[in-house]
Amino acid sequence: MAPTRVALVGAAGQTGSSIVEGLLEAGDQFSIVALTRPSSITKPANGNLKDRGVEIRSFDLSGPEEPLVEALRDIDVLICAIAATDQEAQIPLATAAKKAQVKRFVPCAFITVAPPGRMMLRDWKEDIYNHIKRIHLPYTIIDVGWWYQISYPRLPSGKIDYVAMNVPTLIGDGNVPSALTDLRDIGRYVAKIVVDERTLNKYFLAYDELLTPNQVVEELERLSGDTIPREYLSEQTLREKIETASKLYETDLSQAFLKASAEYMLSWGINGDNTPDNAKYLGYLTCKELYPDFQSISYTSYLQEVLDGEAKPVYEDNEEIRSLTISLRESMDGKA
Amino acid sequence: MAPTRVALVGAAGQTGSSIVEGLLEAGDQFSIVALTRPSSITKPANGNLKDRGVEIRSFDLSGPEEPLVEALRDIDVLICAIAATDQEAQIPLATAAKKAQVKRFVPCAFITVAPPGRMMLRDWKEDIYNHIKRIHLPYTIIDVGWWYQISYPRLPSGKIDYVAMNVPTLIGDGNVPSALTDLRDIGRYVAKIVVDERTLNKYFLAYDELLTPNQVVEELERLSGDTIPREYLSEQTLREKIETASKLYETDLSQAFLKASAEYMLSWGINGDNTPDNAKYLGYLTCKELYPDFQSISYTSYLQEVLDGEAKPVYEDNEEIRSLTISLRESMDGKA
Repeated sequence: MAPTRVALVGAAGQTGSSIVEGLLEAGDQFSIVALTRPSSITKPANGNLKDRGVEIRSFDLSGPEEPLVEALRDIDVLICAIAATDQEAQIPLATAAKKAQVKRFVPCAFITVAPPGRMMLRDWKEDIYNHIKRIHLPYTIIDVGWWYQISYPRLPSGKIDYVAMNVPTLIGDGNVPSALTDLRDIGRYVAKIVVDERTLNKYFLAYDELLTPNQVVEELERLSGDTIPREYLSEQTLREKIETASKLYETDLSQAFLKASAEYMLSWGINGDNTPDNAKYLGYLTCKELYPDFQSISYTSYLQEVLDGEAKPVYEDNEEIRSLTISLRESMDGKA
Repeated sequence: MAPTRVALVGAAGQTGSSIVEGLLEAGDQFSIVALTRPSSITKPANGNLKDRGVEIRSFDLSGPEEPLVEALRDIDVLICAIAATDQEAQIPLATAAKKAQVKRFVPCAFITVAPPGRMMLRDWKEDIYNHIKRIHLPYTIIDVGWWYQISYPRLPSGKIDYVAMNVPTLIGDGNVPSALTDLRDIGRYVAKIVVDERTLNKYFLAYDELLTPNQVVEELERLSGDTIPREYLSEQTLREKIETASKLYETDLSQAFLKASAEYMLSWGINGDNTPDNAKYLGYLTCKELYPDFQSISYTSYLQEVLDGEAKPVYEDNEEIRSLTISLRESMDGKA
C-alpha cells in the first residue's frame, strides 16, 4: 500500500515535534511533509528533519491562496499544531485544504476536553471547527488532556526544579479526576488516529491516565520519599483571577496567559470537564475503546524519569512561555 | 413497565401539537404533562388536551427557579418547542431540568440541518446547546428538515391557495436536494427517539424524503395537471436580502423574519446543508438508519391531500407569521 502522505504545520513546536516522532516511528506507513514558513526553511531544526526523511516544503500561510492549494495537492492528511494565539491562521489553511481535496484535516485542537463557552483558548478553536463544518471539510478533532510534563509540583528539596514547570497542581479539593497524557505519546496516538476510518469527522480524546491532583502529589511523594506541602487553589481564587485578567488581557499578553491558565484549571480542576466520561457525553471517541492495546507511558514511569534526572523540560527554547509561567506562579502564590 | 413521563413546553404550537399527537398515538407508553403559562391554563386548547388525558401543569418560565425545579421533579423527558425568538428562555429551563434530575432534555431544535455560523435562528439555538453541555444535562437534539407544509408553490389556477404558504420554492438552480418532513410525522418520530438509549446525548435528523425543489414542482405539476411558472431565486438575491435585512432587523421584526427566511433558503437551497449526508458529517444519527420500518407520510400523498382540498394550513391561528410570510413573498417577487 502506498504510504499516507501527511503534511504538518508547526512541526517544530511541542505538540508538532511529538507528532513528527509518532509518524516517523510508524515507519513506511507515512511520508511526511513539514510545511514551513519561507523564512524558516534554513533553520537547523528543519535540517534535522530533512536528514530523517521529512520533506521540508515552503508554505506561507499569510500569503495568497493559490500557492497554498498547490502545496497541498498531493496531501492525504493535513495536521495543524500551532500556537494558541495563532488559531485564526487556520481559516485560510482549511479553505485551501478543501480546494486541494485533502482527505482529512486535523485542526489545532490538542488540549483538554471542555464544552464551548468555558475557555477562551478553546473558543478560538471552536471558530475554526465551525468554519471547517461550513465548508464541509473532512476532519478529526484530537484532544489530548493535560500533559504529564506540566502536571506535578516541585519538591521542597529542589531536586526536580530542572524540569518541573511549577504550575499550580492542587485545584479545589484536589479530588476531581482529569485525563493526563505524556507529551511523547501524542504523536503515537495521532499516527493511529489519522489512518482510522472510524475517526473521520469525529472528536477524539487520546489520553494515558485519569488521575486526581491528590493522586498525582501522593504518587510523587511515594516515589521521592519527600513530603510535599499542600497548597490548594480555590474555585473563588480562580474565578477572581479570570475576572481580573479578562479586563486587562487585551493590552497585556501576560494577562491573556493568566486568564487562559486559570480557565484551564477551573475547567479540569473544578468543573471536571477533562474526563473520558465527559468526552463521551460531548460526542468524543476515546483511545481506550478504539486502541485498547496501545502501550502508553505510565504516569509512575514518567515521574520516575523526572526523579532520575532523565526527563526533558518542555518549552525549553521558548523563553516567553517559561517566563509567563513564572509570572503565573507568582500571581497565584499566597492566593490559595 | 411504568410509562415514561414526558413534559412539553409549547404544546400549543405547530411543532408542539405534532409532538402531543405523536405521544398520544403511542398510547400507554407515555404520561404527558403540558407545562403551561399560568395565564394560559384556562385556554380552550388546554381544556382539549386535558380531555385527552394530558395533565396541564402551571409553569412560569419567567418566574423564580425553585417552582420550576419542583414542577420538573417527576419528569423523565422534557421537550421544548417554543417560538424561534424565545430560545433564551431555555437557559433557566435547562438549569432547572438539571437540578430536577430530568433524564433527557430535548431542546427546541426542530429545524433544518446546518452548521453553526450559517443562520441566525440556528445560532440562537447553539447558545442553548452549549449551555446544556456546560451543565452536563443529558440531551437529544432533534432536527426535522423542512416541512412538507411550506415546501411547494401555488398553482396558477388558485386551487390550492387555501393552504399553500406561498414561500419561494425554487432556490438557485432548483437542483439541490433537501430533507423534507410532514409536520404530522415529527411527533411520531419524537415518540420513538425519546425512549431510545441510542439517541441519548446525540444529534438526530428525522425526515421523510430527500427532494430537490425541481422535483417538488414537477410532482405538483404531475398530480395537478397544471403548468407552474418557474421563478428561480438566485444566490445573489438571497445574499443581498440577508445583507439588507441584517442591517435593519434590530428595529424591525419583519426584517428579522426576512433575514431568517433568506438564510434558511441559502442554507438548504444553495449550500446544501439540509441533507442526511451532511447531517451524518455533522455527527447526527438519522431515522433511516435507526427506524427503517417507520411508516412516514409520502410527499406524493401529502400533495394529493392538498389537491383534494383536505390539507390543513399551518400557522392558521398565527396572524403575525401569516402576514410576515406575505411580506416575505412580496419582498422576493421580481427579484429572482
